[in-house]
Amino acid sequence: MFDVTRYATAAQSIVDAGRFLYDRGWSPATSSNYSARLDHDHVAITVSGRHKGQLTAGDVMVVDLNGQAVQSDCKSSAETLLHTVLYQIFPNVGAVLHTHSVKATVLSRLASPGSALDFEGYELQKAFSGVETHEGILSIPVFDNTQDIPALAEQTREWFQARPDQPGYLIRGHGLYTWGKTMADCLRHVEAFEFLFECELETMRVRP
Amino acid sequence: MFDVTRYATAAQSIVDAGRFLYDRGWSPATSSNYSARLDHDHVAITVSGRHKGQLTAGDVMVVDLNGQAVQSDCKSSAETLLHTVLYQIFPNVGAVLHTHSVKATVLSRLASPGSALDFEGYELQKAFSGVETHEGILSIPVFDNTQDIPALAEQTREWFQARPDQPGYLIRGHGLYTWGKTMADCLRHVEAFEFLFECELETMRVRP
Amino acid sequence: MFDVTRYATAAQSIVDAGRFLYDRGWSPATSSNYSARLDHDHVAITVSGRHKGQLTAGDVMVVDLNGQAVQSDCKSSAETLLHTVLYQIFPNVGAVLHTHSVKATVLSRLASPGSALDFEGYELQKAFSGVETHEGILSIPVFDNTQDIPALAEQTREWFQARPDQPGYLIRGHGLYTWGKTMADCLRHVEAFEFLFECELETMRVRP
Amino acid sequence: MFDVTRYATAAQSIVDAGRFLYDRGWSPATSSNYSARLDHDHVAITVSGRHKGQLTAGDVMVVDLNGQAVQSDCKSSAETLLHTVLYQIFPNVGAVLHTHSVKATVLSRLASPGSALDFEGYELQKAFSGVETHEGILSIPVFDNTQDIPALAEQTREWFQARPDQPGYLIRGHGLYTWGKTMADCLRHVEAFEFLFECELETMRVRP
Repeated sequence: MFDVTRYATAAQSIVDAGRFLYDRGWSPATSSNYSARLDHDHVAITVSGRHKGQLTAGDVMVVDLNGQAVQSDCKSSAETLLHTVLYQIFPNVGAVLHTHSVKATVLSRLASPGSALDFEGYELQKAFSGVETHEGILSIPVFDNTQDIPALAEQTREWFQARPDQPGYLIRGHGLYTWGKTMADCLRHVEAFEFLFECELETMRVRP
Repeated sequence: MFDVTRYATAAQSIVDAGRFLYDRGWSPATSSNYSARLDHDHVAITVSGRHKGQLTAGDVMVVDLNGQAVQSDCKSSAETLLHTVLYQIFPNVGAVLHTHSVKATVLSRLASPGSALDFEGYELQKAFSGVETHEGILSIPVFDNTQDIPALAEQTREWFQARPDQPGYLIRGHGLYTWGKTMADCLRHVEAFEFLFECELETMRVRP
Repeated sequence: MFDVTRYATAAQSIVDAGRFLYDRGWSPATSSNYSARLDHDHVAITVSGRHKGQLTAGDVMVVDLNGQAVQSDCKSSAETLLHTVLYQIFPNVGAVLHTHSVKATVLSRLASPGSALDFEGYELQKAFSGVETHEGILSIPVFDNTQDIPALAEQTREWFQARPDQPGYLIRGHGLYTWGKTMADCLRHVEAFEFLFECELETMRVRP
Repeated sequence: MFDVTRYATAAQSIVDAGRFLYDRGWSPATSSNYSARLDHDHVAITVSGRHKGQLTAGDVMVVDLNGQAVQSDCKSSAETLLHTVLYQIFPNVGAVLHTHSVKATVLSRLASPGSALDFEGYELQKAFSGVETHEGILSIPVFDNTQDIPALAEQTREWFQARPDQPGYLIRGHGLYTWGKTMADCLRHVEAFEFLFECELETMRVRP
């Protein structure tokens, strides 16, 4: 059983994140899903299909790390396993955000199959936990979109077990997954990714 | 005669929709018109020429499904028949929104006469009621603009009676029409369309 | 002498317009100036160099139609004569707004010397007072920028006395002038112009 | 020792600036740093790594003009010397803002090494203190990014001692530094720079 106060705090952090992310236009039209860890075995996660700018605690439920609902009749996001796999492989991860911006969508569709987006020479790379200089390369894989979420979850498990320093990934035509130790870290990662996506697209606009 | 409480509720949903849509820049300069069904024979609809970010219930009137004002001296939008024809052919439609964004305007002007915009491979296609996968094609016809609204209303009647699954259309240089079972569904459709329009334009900007 | 209540009302309409226009990004960095007619001989106008998003009534003064300060030691905008000439030639004009957006600046710099911007086939042309259809051509002259405001004022007088139906003009690298019977009409014109400017630029981005 | 009331006032001006700059998207993901002069020997400056849209006075500390913390255990920004060198060479400077927008980042990455960005023919050049006409050239150097801040500080000292009229500079892939007599002047300079950056990029988008 999970601690109810931890649930309440996690749910509030998800509600607040939703308002921020929706207002930026990064979670439109009931897209996106968010989660926060309660303990070693449980995470709070958004109920499927809710308006992300109008979340209340009633739109946040609890699942175990196999993605099964705990003490709830609600249905969590179809993509729940993409969250829980990250909590399984990274014991320090406290929050996972999946967002669905125009820029993530467009960039991921422009990428070649099996490729990654590389970011280099941006001071803002330092916004990612553990990065101390703009001189490295930040690499973000782009996975093909699918409605077979368990298969995609296993793909991401293999990828990030081998590359634990990469802080996020894209699904083609579908959006961004990123994570962090706290919800504040995770939100900073979303902001940094959206900044980098916009820089890349703006550069392509003026140098097509 | 229509139920007054239903009118008051519908008017409020229209006022709230207007504030949202105007704030996004999708209903500038007194453009756009919105409606919500009251019953089998009546819809609430915006009075012609009002500022869509500053609507009050006094800016929402009632018309019958032939577009005639009911218990009102106000003049409804010149495009009232484009709303009522949708309520006639779709008994389950509860709300219709016509918006007028830059992106809808530009995309509709770029389309060839008689053509449709096709969207494929976007996860957000699932935001439209009844769509379960990103793998289908979402097709949106573009009608020529005209000041002869009864003729355009008949064109749309023929088109959508034959293709009831298509959730909206564009008028060239003029904007978007979309509908839904509830106002919330309809607003989600507007958001999803604007997302898809922006994705298409952004892709064209970087791959002109 | 002017009516003080009319001044107070006009000043408030200018303060409110400033907040709206600054929030949209159309009056950055103390640029822009706004005015509203008090009577046949007097207009309220912004004091030079003030932050347009933080105006109070103390930032609005009165000038006569020759641009001379009335009952005030403040200095009105260097461009005051561009306002007063419009009140002289159009007795029905009640408000004049000069805004300074990125889009107006860029479009005006791209235009050839002595040319005009033409807008055609946009439904939103109907947002301008007196326009009933999208089928006409809306034509907007682009004047060269100068620090010799009296000379520019005479240029605009000649132009608009000959073409009283054109609702605005651009100064190259400097922004938009538009006017209307009321402040609400004038704000609607600014919105409509910005919409059309954005449509033109977006079209040029995707079809460079 | 510094005057505590001056510190409190300066800290509030920094907190307010942060809210404004973050809301515009010019200081995302804990990037940026801001300072305000207290007296000949002291400046208030943001503590390293804080969220710029959520600053409180506790996120603002005092350093001397060598960048050493005064009466504080906090760590100021790694870029503190880029601020203090400006206060050393310009006795009239009262505030320095470093921002980190997409547009500054992209433009600075597109510039050739050792080059400057020149702005000409923009009326908004007059937003910079001391500029009376749009006819001059506003020139902004672009320095290479480095994690060796003392070296970059000396580069900027040499550059601006020789060219005291230039109101700002870019660091490649890293953002803008600008300054002013007061915080209000400095914020106006940020707004004017962002306007000019957007104009240049928009022009490049439509004429790539």
